[in-house]
Amino acid sequence: MKMRAITTIPPNGGVKFSQVSPEDGDGIKIRTYQTGICGTDKEIVLGNLKFARPEKGPSLILGHEAVGIVEDPKGNSGFKEGDIVVPMVRRPGKCRMCRLGRQDYCEDGDFVEAGIRGKNGFMRDEFIDDPRFLNKVNDPSILGLAVLTEPLKNVMKIKETFQFLRLRQPWYCDDSTLACKNMYVFGTGTEGLLISIVFRSLGMNVVQVNRHPLGETIMDFFDLNKIEYLDTSSENLDKKVKDAPMDAAIDAVGAMDVLKEITDNIANNGIAIMFGTSGQLPSSNYDVLEKLVDRNIVVAGSVDGAKSHYAEAIRFIETNGKTTGMSRLITGRYGPEDLKIFTEKENQEIKKVIAWS
Amino acid sequence: MKMRAITTIPPNGGVKFSQVSPEDGDGIKIRTYQTGICGTDKEIVLGNLKFARPEKGPSLILGHEAVGIVEDPKGNSGFKEGDIVVPMVRRPGKCRMCRLGRQDYCEDGDFVEAGIRGKNGFMRDEFIDDPRFLNKVNDPSILGLAVLTEPLKNVMKIKETFQFLRLRQPWYCDDSTLACKNMYVFGTGTEGLLISIVFRSLGMNVVQVNRHPLGETIMDFFDLNKIEYLDTSSENLDKKVKDAPMDAAIDAVGAMDVLKEITDNIANNGIAIMFGTSGQLPSSNYDVLEKLVDRNIVVAGSVDGAKSHYAEAIRFIETNGKTTGMSRLITGRYGPEDLKIFTEKENQEIKKVIAWS
Amino acid sequence: MKMRAITTIPPNGGVKFSQVSPEDGDGIKIRTYQTGICGTDKEIVLGNLKFARPEKGPSLILGHEAVGIVEDPKGNSGFKEGDIVVPMVRRPGKCRMCRLGRQDYCEDGDFVEAGIRGKNGFMRDEFIDDPRFLNKVNDPSILGLAVLTEPLKNVMKIKETFQFLRLRQPWYCDDSTLACKNMYVFGTGTEGLLISIVFRSLGMNVVQVNRHPLGETIMDFFDLNKIEYLDTSSENLDKKVKDAPMDAAIDAVGAMDVLKEITDNIANNGIAIMFGTSGQLPSSNYDVLEKLVDRNIVVAGSVDGAKSHYAEAIRFIETNGKTTGMSRLITGRYGPEDLKIFTEKENQEIKKVIAWS
Amino acid sequence: MKMRAITTIPPNGGVKFSQVSPEDGDGIKIRTYQTGICGTDKEIVLGNLKFARPEKGPSLILGHEAVGIVEDPKGNSGFKEGDIVVPMVRRPGKCRMCRLGRQDYCEDGDFVEAGIRGKNGFMRDEFIDDPRFLNKVNDPSILGLAVLTEPLKNVMKIKETFQFLRLRQPWYCDDSTLACKNMYVFGTGTEGLLISIVFRSLGMNVVQVNRHPLGETIMDFFDLNKIEYLDTSSENLDKKVKDAPMDAAIDAVGAMDVLKEITDNIANNGIAIMFGTSGQLPSSNYDVLEKLVDRNIVVAGSVDGAKSHYAEAIRFIETNGKTTGMSRLITGRYGPEDLKIFTEKENQEIKKVIAWS
Repeated sequence: MKMRAITTIPPNGGVKFSQVSPEDGDGIKIRTYQTGICGTDKEIVLGNLKFARPEKGPSLILGHEAVGIVEDPKGNSGFKEGDIVVPMVRRPGKCRMCRLGRQDYCEDGDFVEAGIRGKNGFMRDEFIDDPRFLNKVNDPSILGLAVLTEPLKNVMKIKETFQFLRLRQPWYCDDSTLACKNMYVFGTGTEGLLISIVFRSLGMNVVQVNRHPLGETIMDFFDLNKIEYLDTSSENLDKKVKDAPMDAAIDAVGAMDVLKEITDNIANNGIAIMFGTSGQLPSSNYDVLEKLVDRNIVVAGSVDGAKSHYAEAIRFIETNGKTTGMSRLITGRYGPEDLKIFTEKENQEIKKVIAWS
Repeated sequence: MKMRAITTIPPNGGVKFSQVSPEDGDGIKIRTYQTGICGTDKEIVLGNLKFARPEKGPSLILGHEAVGIVEDPKGNSGFKEGDIVVPMVRRPGKCRMCRLGRQDYCEDGDFVEAGIRGKNGFMRDEFIDDPRFLNKVNDPSILGLAVLTEPLKNVMKIKETFQFLRLRQPWYCDDSTLACKNMYVFGTGTEGLLISIVFRSLGMNVVQVNRHPLGETIMDFFDLNKIEYLDTSSENLDKKVKDAPMDAAIDAVGAMDVLKEITDNIANNGIAIMFGTSGQLPSSNYDVLEKLVDRNIVVAGSVDGAKSHYAEAIRFIETNGKTTGMSRLITGRYGPEDLKIFTEKENQEIKKVIAWS
Repeated sequence: MKMRAITTIPPNGGVKFSQVSPEDGDGIKIRTYQTGICGTDKEIVLGNLKFARPEKGPSLILGHEAVGIVEDPKGNSGFKEGDIVVPMVRRPGKCRMCRLGRQDYCEDGDFVEAGIRGKNGFMRDEFIDDPRFLNKVNDPSILGLAVLTEPLKNVMKIKETFQFLRLRQPWYCDDSTLACKNMYVFGTGTEGLLISIVFRSLGMNVVQVNRHPLGETIMDFFDLNKIEYLDTSSENLDKKVKDAPMDAAIDAVGAMDVLKEITDNIANNGIAIMFGTSGQLPSSNYDVLEKLVDRNIVVAGSVDGAKSHYAEAIRFIETNGKTTGMSRLITGRYGPEDLKIFTEKENQEIKKVIAWS
Repeated sequence: MKMRAITTIPPNGGVKFSQVSPEDGDGIKIRTYQTGICGTDKEIVLGNLKFARPEKGPSLILGHEAVGIVEDPKGNSGFKEGDIVVPMVRRPGKCRMCRLGRQDYCEDGDFVEAGIRGKNGFMRDEFIDDPRFLNKVNDPSILGLAVLTEPLKNVMKIKETFQFLRLRQPWYCDDSTLACKNMYVFGTGTEGLLISIVFRSLGMNVVQVNRHPLGETIMDFFDLNKIEYLDTSSENLDKKVKDAPMDAAIDAVGAMDVLKEITDNIANNGIAIMFGTSGQLPSSNYDVLEKLVDRNIVVAGSVDGAKSHYAEAIRFIETNGKTTGMSRLITGRYGPEDLKIFTEKENQEIKKVIAWS
């Protein structure tokens, strides 16, 4: 008995629709419902991700954004048949932060990531997993949105970092809220958009920034969520910040240009969180230091998220998913054999998902 | 009755030994004992500091590092004749952080800085000052070291920032101390050296980094304080961090090269604090982002210090000044008419001071 | 033109259905929709609240829990006719925390509280208010729940305090979540129940504690929210904590017995937040100190909440109000002339509200 | 070959001058220089400490405050013959905080404490110890003060707790310092006096409180350190706090009366840290709750200290020991055979030490 899977040969890349043997083991048996694809998947397929590596043998099953349904809990307490679950991507090594359940803060890099490095991913009909790494979805009505949990958990860690860094000072408005504070979010991919709705839910004004006009889908999403869009091909950032100071900024692009735009424009005592890592973008001669120092700016990198962030992401989708129009972020559903989605980009594409069952 | 003073014409620069009229006013009358000169003074004299500006009229009295002796407290409580005092450089504006006494975190830039922008400095025989901005030295035996209070107060703010950022995680060794943690300090000027002895006092290992061999004075100072010196002209930084991981780093240089060296080499979850701002150093094409993100690095700019940091600096000099050999940092004492100290650099120079009385 | 109002003569108490003159002024004119009554109102009516005092004249309009509808914004930006608003209770004085918008942390007690001390409350047909103290409800479908905002904002401050105190240590489970942590909530009034659903939303196990069996309404509410109920008249607390350690505790009762129950039973490094203040309960001879010290317990008092907490409370009702069955907490709706609700207690009463329009 | 030791039979108590066999083992061999005795030793001897227990056999060697000199490092790196060392009291179990080196925050009580429970103490001529639990003194001139390291390390943990709790708010004066803040320290034993000099070094005003007049030795110590003494047998606490508000308080007594005095008098947003645990003092009928809640007071228990606090304590003695007159706290030196020091109290006694070599 074989099952369907999507595989690659890391780090060289490529993508193949394959028939593979199902896993065996003691864990919980899960039928994959949907998997999402993101920039990381495309980079692996292009062979650009040098740290991509297989679990064993030469090929790696792709897929780190997933939602599945428990088919057989095999006696594992806490789960039952039919439960909707989101599996974690990163699995802990042995360092101190890993032992504390914070492998997102792994100290030595000795972890594996499903579908990326050292562990087969979820782009297959079913998989066996350890209940410690499964996050339960309580509300079945969000089954179609739960594939967004994985990208959203990164945002929850960003929020944790932001809330921590705010403690440095009484970093709030004179009425105690964040209503006077402007958060600039760079990038308009899935992560950038999820960041914006999470920070809107904290009561901040959000200005989303990119360098070109956007299609109707995203603009409607902005309207619904009262997010302002700044297209820097038609309006200057430095002019904009005169009206709406950049009190904080989050980067979901990963280009040095953006870091420079942030340090050039952010307000005194500003908080910047960097999430994007697009290694392909060119760099120029920049000096970000002077303003960083003179303005007491804090810049924090944030990668991955802990199980607590998966849980928080699921709760957010359950409580805010519908009112924020999160379903609009899923702009295409495909079958597993449609491999062109790894290489072609649709018009107004945000998040494409693969339906497995 | 005129008094001696050292003046410049900002922002054009130049330096002049002048006779000026003493100030009048309700504050405390202070006889200047010593003033230090630092890179900022030299930049003002060279005309490189574009934000330098006079208090009134075209000329500005230089000097922001000072120690003086109260000559007439004029009834101001809390001070008496003969008290040793260190005046603050930055004076608050009206923003929220300024009203909280944290003008070092000024939100709108609406402050003045003695000897730099908008307020005459302390390179003169005497001055009148508001007791709110004077810091008392209790131990008269450190009179000759107290001129280091001003640069040291910056270090105390850096320490405050570091201790705050550590709270993000259990950022300490398995025995609860910092004895296993390596702090890399870039730069070997006065600030760099003061940073190192303060972080040594926290029990960290300190590796001081520069790009050339150093003279005997500094090397002896390192020996005394058990600071390790890394001369990157003879040993590679990336090789060094294999033996002694860069758990944290502080920059007292102000060059993008250093920021790159830090982000390239710092350990996961590393804390970097940027203090230096040498706008004159060239930049190259750098990408500091990927490692910043993937390693959850925090980079915080830190400028100036609050009154609490002056107080802490004075206490540190009183309790640690002698055992750390702080007097070795003062490599020359000059008269006020010796203007060449603003333009010439002595062999093995660290801190030069001007004796006024 | 007179309007209806409910008044008392503080601090002596009593309650009267009155006709009073409407307010005049520059603020926003609001038609009261509903007001809630709570223990504080009853204590004022009984004459037990010694700090209760009128705004002017001898009588005080009661009511601090309210939701209203904007009738005339009078040109005040940010609000329009028909907006649903919740007014703040406590209005700032001049101390530092008040100027930072944190009058809930008022340093000198120089504040007023609508319906309690120094300011007329909201138990009247309409009132004029300053837009700075109005919190907007965005989702009109929660109009009937918004009267719970005021008690819920206290819970949001408790949550802020809890999240802060957790930073002292890696206070979380080995998988980074709070799923293994038990929060004991003492008291089963409105505040106690709101505390429980908020801490359930953080992923904690919640054990609600009281000293007698409860009615069906509350037990159903517990079932819905997966809150465990401990009736200490039939099961011992010290036996219960053997199975489910008391990692944290929140008191919504206000009796020294409860503080003793907490310090006797809370786990090492426990976090206890005290919110209740029922001055009428007797005290016995207790020694809470030894365990407090030996176990590194933190006990924090928490009173009131800031505007940020009102905003967070409204968002919580909007996103969680229906799924948590919050409407079950409102066990009676009455007309303004039904004054017996201040002195009589209904069977299974939780929160009674007065409908004004 | 026998050595001298002072033993007890826990938990029954008693004290005996004995001849015991030296330990054997792989650790470092240390010759005891001095041991201090404190209230805990006396309680063990009186049989009041129910948790006191031997290491093996019926008797326990007493002594947890010690300083010794390395006689044989037995090849253990990091120590050499002649090094002055202070051994740690509490040794870790297996819980999470113990594994993080924070056995002072032990989660399950599964630790041992030298001279108190489960491990022989240091009142003997020599002992063998694990280098992980030894703290090195760098400055030999404080050999006679280093016996104070153990009580002082508790103060350093109290300081850590205080500095953490301050982050809840901008808890400082309008000039950023703590110069306007009053710290009340209850108790005038060794711990109380050490607390006061440490908080004086933070720039706070310190009011030391007890219920009777004090002798000349302590009053001179107060003068030297500019500590104010409040004798509540002659001046009321509630009158005193009108002039000097109780912004924070630390208890080194351990009586419920003191907790009541603190909650009755502490300022809004006050920070209280409880260290004392004198289980023998009677309790009365108290209600500490109302003020705790209405004033947002935080009360934190604090016990023991981590290795980081030992290190900080040693540094403090090295840098501040002489100027603060710490030697005055040692009011008597005795031989090991002088067992009456466990049961008799000298006039003006503060700390008695036993000289072993």
